[in-house]
This record gives sequence, structure tokens and C-alpha cells, in this order.
Amino acid sequence: MHSRSTPGRTSWPFPTAVLFLALLASAAHAGPEQAPGKVHVPLASWQDTDARKAIIDFVTKVTDAGSRDFVPPAERIAVFDNDGTLWPENPVPFQLAFALDELKRRLPEEPEWKDDPSVQAAIAGNLPALLADHYKGLFRIIELTGSGLTTVEFADRVRAWFATAKHPRFDRPCDQLAYQPMLELLAYLRANGFKTFLVSGGGADFMRVFSERVYGVPPEQVVGSNARTVYKLRQSGPVLVKTMDTLFIDDKAGKPVAIHQFIGRRPIACFGNSDGDKEMLEYTTVDNPRPSLGLIIHHTDADREYAYDSEPKSSGKLVEALADATRRGWIVVDMQKDWTEVFAD
Amino acid sequence: MHSRSTPGRTSWPFPTAVLFLALLASAAHAGPEQAPGKVHVPLASWQDTDARKAIIDFVTKVTDAGSRDFVPPAERIAVFDNDGTLWPENPVPFQLAFALDELKRRLPEEPEWKDDPSVQAAIAGNLPALLADHYKGLFRIIELTGSGLTTVEFADRVRAWFATAKHPRFDRPCDQLAYQPMLELLAYLRANGFKTFLVSGGGADFMRVFSERVYGVPPEQVVGSNARTVYKLRQSGPVLVKTMDTLFIDDKAGKPVAIHQFIGRRPIACFGNSDGDKEMLEYTTVDNPRPSLGLIIHHTDADREYAYDSEPKSSGKLVEALADATRRGWIVVDMQKDWTEVFAD
Repeated sequence: MHSRSTPGRTSWPFPTAVLFLALLASAAHAGPEQAPGKVHVPLASWQDTDARKAIIDFVTKVTDAGSRDFVPPAERIAVFDNDGTLWPENPVPFQLAFALDELKRRLPEEPEWKDDPSVQAAIAGNLPALLADHYKGLFRIIELTGSGLTTVEFADRVRAWFATAKHPRFDRPCDQLAYQPMLELLAYLRANGFKTFLVSGGGADFMRVFSERVYGVPPEQVVGSNARTVYKLRQSGPVLVKTMDTLFIDDKAGKPVAIHQFIGRRPIACFGNSDGDKEMLEYTTVDNPRPSLGLIIHHTDADREYAYDSEPKSSGKLVEALADATRRGWIVVDMQKDWTEVFAD
Repeated sequence: MHSRSTPGRTSWPFPTAVLFLALLASAAHAGPEQAPGKVHVPLASWQDTDARKAIIDFVTKVTDAGSRDFVPPAERIAVFDNDGTLWPENPVPFQLAFALDELKRRLPEEPEWKDDPSVQAAIAGNLPALLADHYKGLFRIIELTGSGLTTVEFADRVRAWFATAKHPRFDRPCDQLAYQPMLELLAYLRANGFKTFLVSGGGADFMRVFSERVYGVPPEQVVGSNARTVYKLRQSGPVLVKTMDTLFIDDKAGKPVAIHQFIGRRPIACFGNSDGDKEMLEYTTVDNPRPSLGLIIHHTDADREYAYDSEPKSSGKLVEALADATRRGWIVVDMQKDWTEVFAD
């Protein structure tokens, strides 16, 4: 495979074991910074359906000081999954595309990597193998390509990747693929005194490169998979060197664990799209003494984005959380019917 | 020892192996909520000395949009150690006092605990043994008394302790012992667009019980020692059960590691009082491309508080960081000379 890869160009594996080679103009860049979803009409890209009404009803009641459902601003914590909730996770989660590109870029200098089963799966484009067992193979690729870098070096590489790689289907940088209705939702919640957090299986160090610029979520409100760094005071100044020690995967039951560890109080609003979000939806909504809102994005729109639930081609399986939605009172957003637009122009 | 302890009463070990039995009125409580340091004159309890001037000069330049030293509000991250920086750490850190009281309260029901060397050290009032080797004994006591509780149960116990225990010397609840000049400093920084964080060796679950009420620092801005919880969906609702798995001690080189993990960017202002804060002072100030401020509280005031540095009777050894202060440009606050008041009335 590495004979087909060229530094500075980007290829994405398809789950069908066919590697998609995205051709990139070397001059391609991320474009002007995207404003984090400032809107005048709240939720303008949402159809006037039950989902939009439920969101507005909830926000109205918790911000009404005269309501028995009023929630003080400090407790208005909203948590958002990222991949599949705020932007696509197809054909593969963007961090996997980044890690595979990094792998290809560095493989010629690191020939011993080829003996690693996860590297072999990556070279073969075997996405299911990489995502199996809680993304174990993906994290191995992340470990190989990221460990030993300082956090600043790693962020520079992520930044460079977003500036050059383009999404194979939508032909634009991945950081221009945030869902417009969700940017509006983030902005609407913040305008109503909510503090918005990402709580995602993605790596915190990866997400923090773009979270403020794309979503208006500052680094300190990004909760993701993480591992410990090592502090060193070098001649050039203090650095933190990335390792994969005590790796924490922020998915499934790990999400409420991370919410407690990083935020320290129960959210009152939670937005996800897959079974990986079920536990944080529960933690937000089940027997919460505060009013609460749980919402699931259901990918129903093959024309404008993707359609999947029980058998996703990438990550994002949605079966258990969907089955629980009715009894839990979680809103299920039908992307096709509830959103007038998917992406910003 | 347990024959001298009574549930609901509180005793503190003295380092001299004499257990101090604080007599408590059962009606004692934490009193009205303390406002988090709102002031009209900035830093009113600071003498008009170099320390105060240096703080005001720094804040003035980083908030002056016309200055080359201007720092955008999003990057105005200030980190504060807690014990010895925002409130006393004598005769022992308050969390140790809490844990020892919990130990005594529960020891009659858990007779097998008596075989544990850390429990024996606690019973003997052997504080140096408990604090040795990065507080290993203390964390063992914390593990025994906290593990298995839900995070809500634990917070309730901490809350109850602050409502009943009194500081043996100052005879008031420990959460009324925040240093008035530091409350003013927290408020002054926030009034100038800083986001203030605790970054302390204390347990995050312990500090979050009082951080917002006492310091105006919300739970999501509290970084402390922590371990993973386990998520369970019980009949009564979702809970997080405390364990000591993957314990992380937020001290020394762990502090910049935790700052990266939880905050994700370098602070521009750092406040500490001991060698445990040296690395986060470095991470904040050494070769930071932004203007930065490092400050050390030097405990020089035996009359109003305590005087210690190289040979503290409790935690808080200050030798290396003090030796580095001049070459690093860290401000050293002489508590006796620089503060007009130590505690709020």
C-alpha cells in the first residue's frame, strides 16, 4: 500500500477493503475559519417538527426563572457526542482517516511497523478489524503514530492534515462538514446559558485542535479518549510527551465515567447518535432530579449524508439506544425529515 | 484510638503523634454561604507592595487590547493550587482530617482495617508515615473510606464533615478558612476575563463539594487527584461507584500532565506554595509564547497563620521552587508583609 501513498496526499480505506485514494491539490487548505454557528432565528435549519419543538420547549422551561423547571445557569451542562452527532463518521471516523494517513506517511521510516497486526489490517483496508473490540486496532495505529510526539507536535500534524485532506465524498476539508443544524443547536444552547461539552470517543488531543474553531467549544470543554503524557523540561522549554499509558476510551459506560471525572456534575442535556452514547443518555436523563433532555440523531438520509443504524459500514451502531428511546423519552431526530440542511454552504 | 473517637465528633492528628480531639457542638454548621470574594477595590487585602503591583501590572497588560502583551480572553487560563495556596494545610491538609475522621467513624464496623499499616499509622497519629512516598498512606486511607461509595454518597459525607468539623486552632469550619487575599485575587482575575481552575493534589471529588461555594470555581474547573469510577444503572437510577483504579496523583510533574489532560492549553498564570507546584509553575512561565505570571505563597506568618518552608510539619515543603523563583521571575508573596488580612472575618 505505501507505494500508493504519497506524503501530503490522503487516502481513505473503504470498509470493502478498497482503499480510496483522494486526490488532493497541494494548495488545498481548510479555508476561512467557520464561525461557531451564530444564528438569529434559533434552529433555522430545523424543520418545524416535534424534535425542534421539544428542544425549544425544554430550553424555554429550564431558563424561565418563574418555572418550577428552572435550572440555574451553572447547572446547564450539555454534552455532545462528536462523530455521527456533530459531523459524519463515514466512510470512516475522521480521526481514523488521519491516523491512517499518518501511518502511511511514516511507514517508510518505520519498517518494523509492518509486523504489527493492526498495521497489516490498516494496509489491507480492513476497517472492521480496526474498529473491533472497542476500536483496539485504531488505538494501536494511534499509538504508533502519536506516541513520542509532544502535544504541540501532535496538534501541528492534526492541523496540517485538516488543511490538506479532503473528504472523499463531499470533497471538502473534514472540518467544514459540521452539521449546520447542530451548530445552530450548540449556539442556541450557549445563548441560553448552557455550557456545551464534547464527550466523544475521539481523542481529546485530536478534537481540541478544531473544537473551538468549528464548534465554539474551548479545549477545556472537550472530553475524549485520552492517555497520560509525560512532563519534561527540555532546553527548549517544558513539553508533554504523548504516550498510550492508562489509555481511557471514552465510549459506552466510559462516557458517564468521563463526565464525572472531567465535568463533575450530571448534564441536563445529552446529544448522541449511537449505542456508544446510551449510558451518557441514561446518566443525563434517568431519575435526574433536574429536568433533562436526551436526543439521538438517526442517520436516515442517504442522499444528503448517510443512512445507517443496525449495520453501519463504519462506527455508529444504533440499536439499543434506539430501542430505549421511547421508554426513556429520548427525542429521535430523523435527519431526512427534521433537518432542512445538513451542511453549511 | 477509636475508644476516644465518637461518631459526629472530630479529631485531628498532630505530627507529634498526639491526637488532637476537637470538641464539636453538634449544632455547629458551615454557616451562611461565603460569597466567592466579590470586591470593589481589587486586591484590597494586599499591601501596596511589589507582589500586588506585579499582579496588577500583569493583568493590566494582558487585558489591554492595544498592548503587544494582550491575551485573548479564551487563553486567560489561571491555575491555583489549593492546600497552602488558597487555604491552610496545617495542622494537616483538610482532606486528611476528613479521611481520618471517616476512618474513625467506620473503624468499629470494619475491624479488619486494623491490620493495614496505613490504618495503624493513622491510629498512632503518625502523620509523616501517612504523607511519605507521595502521600501513599493518605491515599490508602482515602481508598478504604471512599471506595465503594457512589459519588453522591461521598459528596454527602464530605458536606456533612464540613458542616460539623472545626479547625483545631481557628475554631471554625474549614471551609471558612479561605485566604481573603486569594479570594480577592480569584475575583479580580475573573473580573478581567480569566477562567480560574483549581489544580491540586487534593481529590477532585473532595474539592468539588466546596469549590464553587467557597472559591467561585465550578466543578468542571476543578482538577485534582482522581481515580476511575464504575458506572451502574441501578433500580434507583444511574450511579458512579468510586474505586481507586488508575489512581492519578495530581502533584509535581503530574500537575502539568493534568493541566493538559483537563484543560488542554497552557495557563498564563499559576499560583502555588510548595515544591509540588514547581512543575506547573514551569509549564506556565518557562518559554511560554504568551506573557505569564508565576506566584508562590511563602508561609511566613506564624502569628496569623503558619510559618514554614523547608521543614513543614505537614505537607507544603518549599525549597526547590523557592530557589528557582528569582531566575524564573516568580513572585514570592511574603504572607506576613504582603497581606493586610489572612482570613475573612
